Amino acid sequence: MITRSFDEIAVGDVWSGRGRTITETDVVSFCYLTGNWLEIHSNVEVAAASSYGQRLVQGSLTFSLIPGLVGWDHRYVIAFYGVDRLRFLRPVFIGDTVHPKVRVVETAPKDDERGVVALAVEVRNQRDEVVQVGVFKLLVRRGPLQLDDTATAP
Amino acid sequence: MITRSFDEIAVGDVWSGRGRTITETDVVSFCYLTGNWLEIHSNVEVAAASSYGQRLVQGSLTFSLIPGLVGWDHRYVIAFYGVDRLRFLRPVFIGDTVHPKVRVVETAPKDDERGVVALAVEVRNQRDEVVQVGVFKLLVRRGPLQLDDTATAP
Amino acid sequence: MITRSFDEIAVGDVWSGRGRTITETDVVSFCYLTGNWLEIHSNVEVAAASSYGQRLVQGSLTFSLIPGLVGWDHRYVIAFYGVDRLRFLRPVFIGDTVHPKVRVVETAPKDDERGVVALAVEVRNQRDEVVQVGVFKLLVRRGPLQLDDTATAP
Amino acid sequence: MITRSFDEIAVGDVWSGRGRTITETDVVSFCYLTGNWLEIHSNVEVAAASSYGQRLVQGSLTFSLIPGLVGWDHRYVIAFYGVDRLRFLRPVFIGDTVHPKVRVVETAPKDDERGVVALAVEVRNQRDEVVQVGVFKLLVRRGPLQLDDTATAP
Amino acid sequence: MITRSFDEIAVGDVWSGRGRTITETDVVSFCYLTGNWLEIHSNVEVAAASSYGQRLVQGSLTFSLIPGLVGWDHRYVIAFYGVDRLRFLRPVFIGDTVHPKVRVVETAPKDDERGVVALAVEVRNQRDEVVQVGVFKLLVRRGPLQLDDTATAP
Amino acid sequence: MITRSFDEIAVGDVWSGRGRTITETDVVSFCYLTGNWLEIHSNVEVAAASSYGQRLVQGSLTFSLIPGLVGWDHRYVIAFYGVDRLRFLRPVFIGDTVHPKVRVVETAPKDDERGVVALAVEVRNQRDEVVQVGVFKLLVRRGPLQLDDTATAP
Repeated sequence: MITRSFDEIAVGDVWSGRGRTITETDVVSFCYLTGNWLEIHSNVEVAAASSYGQRLVQGSLTFSLIPGLVGWDHRYVIAFYGVDRLRFLRPVFIGDTVHPKVRVVETAPKDDERGVVALAVEVRNQRDEVVQVGVFKLLVRRGPLQLDDTATAP
Repeated sequence: MITRSFDEIAVGDVWSGRGRTITETDVVSFCYLTGNWLEIHSNVEVAAASSYGQRLVQGSLTFSLIPGLVGWDHRYVIAFYGVDRLRFLRPVFIGDTVHPKVRVVETAPKDDERGVVALAVEVRNQRDEVVQVGVFKLLVRRGPLQLDDTATAP
Repeated sequence: MITRSFDEIAVGDVWSGRGRTITETDVVSFCYLTGNWLEIHSNVEVAAASSYGQRLVQGSLTFSLIPGLVGWDHRYVIAFYGVDRLRFLRPVFIGDTVHPKVRVVETAPKDDERGVVALAVEVRNQRDEVVQVGVFKLLVRRGPLQLDDTATAP
Repeated sequence: MITRSFDEIAVGDVWSGRGRTITETDVVSFCYLTGNWLEIHSNVEVAAASSYGQRLVQGSLTFSLIPGLVGWDHRYVIAFYGVDRLRFLRPVFIGDTVHPKVRVVETAPKDDERGVVALAVEVRNQRDEVVQVGVFKLLVRRGPLQLDDTATAP
Repeated sequence: MITRSFDEIAVGDVWSGRGRTITETDVVSFCYLTGNWLEIHSNVEVAAASSYGQRLVQGSLTFSLIPGLVGWDHRYVIAFYGVDRLRFLRPVFIGDTVHPKVRVVETAPKDDERGVVALAVEVRNQRDEVVQVGVFKLLVRRGPLQLDDTATAP
Repeated sequence: MITRSFDEIAVGDVWSGRGRTITETDVVSFCYLTGNWLEIHSNVEVAAASSYGQRLVQGSLTFSLIPGLVGWDHRYVIAFYGVDRLRFLRPVFIGDTVHPKVRVVETAPKDDERGVVALAVEVRNQRDEVVQVGVFKLLVRRGPLQLDDTATAP
C-alpha cells in the first residue's frame, strides 16, 4: 500500500500488492458493467474453439483491479491521471490469481503541494509469469499529514 | 462499430460510438468490482469538501467502457492488447453522458492473417468536452469473412 | 402468494403481490445482465430528447419481476412454462412503484399429479394505472403436501 | 442485428444473434434482481433431487437475453411492446450456450413514420435444440435515417 | 415464514426456512458489496495453503441471508433491531447449502401495538451440521391485520 | 486498520475507519444478495407512509460493512468468529455516510499462536450520531510476522 508522501518516495522504491483470484463472476460482472460481450470472454463454445481453448479474462478488467490490489492511501494519492505503454502480455484465464508489483521509475515535483510519481506496474499470475505491464501516473501529496487527516485514516 | 477487416481500414478513418450516462450505480459497481474505495468516489462528505465538490467517476471506469461503446465486431477484432498515453483530462461526474470518437492513426500488417490498428480515442461528455484520450492497439483480422462467420454474425 | 394446490385453485381466484420501486439500480443492472443498452434506457440525453422525456424501464425487466412479486410457493408451482399476449401498455419510469394483480382465467388438469393454471396478470403503478398485462401459464401440483414438504416450507 | 427500417424488412427475412454461455453468475444475478428464489434455481440439493438433477436456468432469464443477443439498432427499433405465445420448451442448464434465430412473420404499417414487425424467435442451445420460442412485436421506424442519426450510430 | 402477530407467537414455536446454496457468485458479490477482500475469501492460492484448504464463505454473509431464508411477513415484523451471541461455529464453503431453523425463546410486550420476540436461530448445512447460531430480536406487531393490509399481502 | 499482533494490542486501544456513503445502489444490491425485500427497504410508497417517511438502510447491511471500513490486516486477523449485543440504534437512510470507531474491550490469549480480541464497535453517521453498536470477536495472531508475510503485504 502506498502510504507515503511525495517527498518520501524515491525512484527504485518497490511495493507488492495482495493477490486476488479472478473468478467467472468477475469476468461476467465486467461484461455486465462494460456492455462488452466479445465472445472470447462470454461464449464457452467459441472460446473452446479458439487458440486459447477457454474464455479469456478481459485485459481491461485486470488493469482495473490494479489500484485496489496495490492499495493507495487516499490521504497521499490525490489523483490517478494517466497510463503509458499498457500491454497485455499473456492471457489471464478464469481461476488465475494475480498480484501486482510496482516500482517507482520517476518522480517530478509539480508545485509546493503535489508531485507526479510514475510507477512501473507488473501484474504476475500464480506461476509468477508477467501477464500485464504499464506505467501509472499518480499525483501525490507533498509534506506530512495534518492531524485531522490522521483521524480519518483508513 | 468496427466492422471491417484490416485491409479495409485506413489511417484517418473515424467512428463514433453510442453514448452512455454514467450513473451512481456504475460508480458503486466499479468500487464493488475493483475493491478500490478511494473516498473521492465513495464518500459524499469527503467529495463535497474536495476541490471537485462531488464524487468523481473513476478514470479506469470510463476507460473500461470504451470498447463496449465503440463496439467492435468480434469477427474482425481478434484482440485488444495495449494502450498508449491514456490520459484522464477532465473530471467525469455521476450523471455525465459520455461517448467515444475514434480515429485510425496507424495500421501495420503483422502477418498474412492479422494486422495491428492503432486508434486514437477521445471520450467526450454531453458538453462536448474531451474528458479522456488514449491510443488503443487492436489486432485485426485480414481478408473477407468465411461463410459461417456470417451465419453467426452479431 | 400462490400457496395452494391445483385442486384448490378455481377460475376467478385473485391474488395481489407486494410492491417494489423500480430504481435506477434495477434499470442499470438489467442493462448489465442482458447486455442490451438501448439508449432510451441508458442515455439520459437521448431519453430527455425523446417523446418520453426521461429513461424508460425495460418492459422485460418489469415482466421478470412479476413472479417474485406475486410469490409462488415452490411446493405447489412446479414450472412456469409460457406466456401469452404479453403487452407493455404504458411506460414505466425510474422511481415508479409497481405491484401485480393476478386472476385465474383457466385451469386444466394434465395428469393425476399436475394441472395447468393460466393467470391473467396486471401490473399496476403507484397511480393504479395498468402498465403491463399478460397471461402466465403455470404447471401446478395436485393434492395435499406430504409431511416433509411442510417441514421445509419457506 | 436488426439494422434496417420498416420498409426494408420483409416477411421471411432471417437473422442470427450471437451466442452467450449462461453462467452460474447469470442465474444467481437473476435471482438477485428478481427476488425470486425458487429452489430449482437456487438450491443445489433440491435441484439434484428433482427430475432434472441440476439447477435450471430461469425461463424469463433466457427470454430477457434475447434482445441483447439479437441486437437491435436503436435508430430503427423504436419500441419492443409485446410478446405472443412465449414457450419454454426445453430446460436450459448452467453452462449451456444459447443463441437466437429470428424470422419476420408479419409486417404492418402503423402510420407514415412507424410500422409493426412481428418476429418469430427461436433460442437454440449448443446442441442446436430449440429451448424457447415466442413472437416478439417491435415498433420500427420507416424511411431512411437522417444525417445526424448516422453520426451517433452505435 | 413468520406470518403471525405478536399475540399469536409463543415461546417454543419453531419455523424452518428455505435452503440456498451459497455460490462463488455470492461470495464474490459480498466482497464487492462490503469492500472486504480478506484473502481467505478471495484468493484461491492463499486459501489452498490455509488450514481450510479452500475459500471460506464470510460469516457475515451467512448471517445476512438468514432473514430472507426465514422469511418474515412485513405486515407483522416491524423491525429487526439487534442480535445477541452470534457465533460462526463451523466453516461454510462455496457450494454448501444452508437453511435456518428458528425457535422463539422470549416474548415481551412493549406497548399495546408492539412486542419484542427473541428468536434462537440455527443455520445448518446440507450435512445437518450447525454452522452458525445467534439470537435475533424482532419488533412484532400486535393484533389482527386491517383489511387493507390483507389487500396488499405478499 | 488493525495492523498489529495480539501481543501489541491492549484494552483501550482505539481505531477509526474510513467513511462510506450508503447509496441506493447498496441498499438495492443488498436486497438482491439476501433475497430479503421488506418493503420498508424496497418500496418508496410504503416507506413514505411509514413513521420514517423514507426507505431505511438494512441493519445487517450496515453491520456487514464494518470489517471493510475498519480494515483488518489479514496477516494478523485470523478469523472473525462472533458478535455480541449488536444493536441497531438509529435509522440509517440512503445517502447517509457512516464510519466506524472501534475500541479494544478485552484481550484473552488462546494459545501460543493466537488470542481473542473483543472490539466495541460504534458506527456513526455524518452528524456524528451513533447508529449501530456491537462487540466483535476476532481471533488474532501472536508474535511478529515472518519475512514472506511481509512480502505479500496488502
